[in-house]
Amino acid sequence: MHVQTMIRAGHVMPMTEDRAVLSNQAILINDGRIVAILDPAQCADVTADVVYELPDHIVLPGFVNAHTHAPMNLLRGLGADLPLMQWLQTKIWPAEGKLMSPAFCHDGALLAGEEMINSGVTCASDHYFFSADVARGLTEAGMKCSVSAIIIGFPSAMAADDEAYIRCAHELFEEFADSRNVRVTVGPHAPYTVSDIMLTAARDLSEKYGARIHMHVDETQTEIEDSLKQYGMRPVERLHKLGLLNDRFISVHTVHPDDKEIELLAQAGASIVHCPCSNLKLASGFSPVSRMMQAGINLAIGTDGVASNDKLDMLGETRLAAMLGKAVANDTTVMKVADLLYAATMGGAKALGWDDRIGSIEAGKDADIIAVDLGAADSIPVSDPASQLLYSAGREDITHVWVDGQLVVKKQQSTELRNLSREKLQNLAKTWQNRI
Amino acid sequence: MHVQTMIRAGHVMPMTEDRAVLSNQAILINDGRIVAILDPAQCADVTADVVYELPDHIVLPGFVNAHTHAPMNLLRGLGADLPLMQWLQTKIWPAEGKLMSPAFCHDGALLAGEEMINSGVTCASDHYFFSADVARGLTEAGMKCSVSAIIIGFPSAMAADDEAYIRCAHELFEEFADSRNVRVTVGPHAPYTVSDIMLTAARDLSEKYGARIHMHVDETQTEIEDSLKQYGMRPVERLHKLGLLNDRFISVHTVHPDDKEIELLAQAGASIVHCPCSNLKLASGFSPVSRMMQAGINLAIGTDGVASNDKLDMLGETRLAAMLGKAVANDTTVMKVADLLYAATMGGAKALGWDDRIGSIEAGKDADIIAVDLGAADSIPVSDPASQLLYSAGREDITHVWVDGQLVVKKQQSTELRNLSREKLQNLAKTWQNRI
Repeated sequence: MHVQTMIRAGHVMPMTEDRAVLSNQAILINDGRIVAILDPAQCADVTADVVYELPDHIVLPGFVNAHTHAPMNLLRGLGADLPLMQWLQTKIWPAEGKLMSPAFCHDGALLAGEEMINSGVTCASDHYFFSADVARGLTEAGMKCSVSAIIIGFPSAMAADDEAYIRCAHELFEEFADSRNVRVTVGPHAPYTVSDIMLTAARDLSEKYGARIHMHVDETQTEIEDSLKQYGMRPVERLHKLGLLNDRFISVHTVHPDDKEIELLAQAGASIVHCPCSNLKLASGFSPVSRMMQAGINLAIGTDGVASNDKLDMLGETRLAAMLGKAVANDTTVMKVADLLYAATMGGAKALGWDDRIGSIEAGKDADIIAVDLGAADSIPVSDPASQLLYSAGREDITHVWVDGQLVVKKQQSTELRNLSREKLQNLAKTWQNRI
Repeated sequence: MHVQTMIRAGHVMPMTEDRAVLSNQAILINDGRIVAILDPAQCADVTADVVYELPDHIVLPGFVNAHTHAPMNLLRGLGADLPLMQWLQTKIWPAEGKLMSPAFCHDGALLAGEEMINSGVTCASDHYFFSADVARGLTEAGMKCSVSAIIIGFPSAMAADDEAYIRCAHELFEEFADSRNVRVTVGPHAPYTVSDIMLTAARDLSEKYGARIHMHVDETQTEIEDSLKQYGMRPVERLHKLGLLNDRFISVHTVHPDDKEIELLAQAGASIVHCPCSNLKLASGFSPVSRMMQAGINLAIGTDGVASNDKLDMLGETRLAAMLGKAVANDTTVMKVADLLYAATMGGAKALGWDDRIGSIEAGKDADIIAVDLGAADSIPVSDPASQLLYSAGREDITHVWVDGQLVVKKQQSTELRNLSREKLQNLAKTWQNRI
């Protein structure tokens, strides 16, 4: 057999349901799609136009960043350490008020896309204004994306009132109806910024277009207390009553759900997006993620926007999710390595309803693939490639990124002046590893 | 004036008490020491053998990793997601039992040193066996270190009984009595592994040699419950009663102190070392760090060993400490950027009693300096250099490391295939930043 591209890797984690980690595999790619994953015995007679030999690497599907606000990359670094409302009122909202425009959203998304693709994110789900421009910025950076038809109960540079938001939503869905690499979600901002009428309209848009609903839910304790006061019920109960909860619902943050809300989300087949950096940095609280996973809810991981993070580093975000979830559950056996890496890839793809094409390395799927170097001093010796990918490696070790089979990132780091070569360090590590 | 080395940087954070962040400064170095920090007007007539021009960088003192177990780099990746005791009993202790030797400790420390120096750590405080060999490994990697005369109530390959541990301690202190770049601490392992008699011996060693005591304290709730049962008092109270608490005491972890223990540590002038990754990953709990800082306790940051982290990344560790501390305190205004970066540098130097020579960029101090690139897509636009160093940059952006004025690390990352150059991205970011 002859293929266009063959990636031979020391370790491959395809993110199939069995959470397998395979050794010494070859991934074959033709016309942007994965043709097969073979072990060496099976591919003796396979030739390829381009062969990547990556014996020290672990190869996995590209990360799916399931919640971000890409244009906010242009607001990076504003107002650290301020109280939440002062930060919003004196820094973020005035800056957004001044700058908000299609060009701002395009340029910010391009910048965010450059950061993300370099960090191994091959698909992002964005939530912001002027989403057509966001989509153009992100795709120019080389990635796929899902962007939101935002609905919020305030006038903005994009829309003056409820009617205008609905009009913009229809336009966005129509513009990308036939796009291969851009999808659209309905993006009601949050329960506390969207009226019952507009939540119902969001539900109808979701039904009309068969689209996901991408929404901040239960982010802070205040939001829940206000909902109890104003509506006599908690946010998830309200969304349930209004008919928004089903398997197309993506509940972002979800820091403070009670047992009943967890049950409602689980019964609906909804997904949650966990954004641990943002939840800590804004002191929003500690999400009971492992409890939600145990209830059967699909978990995805998101970085949130740079304004509250302040980096778009899915590997680091997933690492934190794993560690933090253990401490919150007071149990080292939950938030297992393979489940978290699955959440960062297939979990996101499932949340977006895009798991027919992305999220795993399987024959027929898009060749959206990353390779992470486990051969440097930061990761050796390698005794558990998946665990060390999550806990030891960093985004700097993501040296190759392919989207639709095209290599879009290739990094090489030269470290001068060190006495010991990479090979010497590896030999040192292996010698001792063999004695264990 | 002529000097050997001049570092001209866009931003300098010297880690002085005022937490200043300076723009456009030149650091002058001669014979391994800092001569002066000058602004451009002052150094028009200064010449240097070597000039580093780093307009996009922030320059700061090297990180002080205040708690690690360097040889454990050779045990990386063993036993993720296991219950704590099962992890120790089936993975870590058997491996240590098999391998423990001077050669293991040297080689592991060399590997850890390579990881640390590449991550901007110029001094580490280690806690392990065969510490002379650990010190040799770490210094061969180019860094300074403090190593521990360990005392633990179990026989090991290093020492068969209490007497042998004391003998090893004296030998270690004597071996490095005149060392410029290696210091020695007394390292009683933890309250639950060291008897009253040996804690008293540790106190006497500390007094004899004027040395720090470096000890795990209040790491888990179990430790405290056991102490209450066995001794009728909490661990810190016991240490106080035995005369160990003073300004030479370094209390590592300190996850579960009560108010009285915090007061005892504060009154003694002791330091704490916060290791948030390890505390989360082992589900040890959430340390009340901001409360301890408010009580006036000096804060240092440590990575702990690779076995429970699994990386020696002080910048990432400090970032997590900042975010996590905000959520634990339910207050976004605590754990401020400058205070955390201070903890990761001067806080560590003070804990080790080494702040006369390291921890800040001030005339007369050792030129242990790092430069972090804030000019890449991951960090632009730069509106708050210190905040973006902590929250946006990663250890991969630490491109230059000097120890005693010698450049020991210089990294360069080439990113091929991207459409947009670094300069184009910076211009894009600056254009919008100027409109805010």
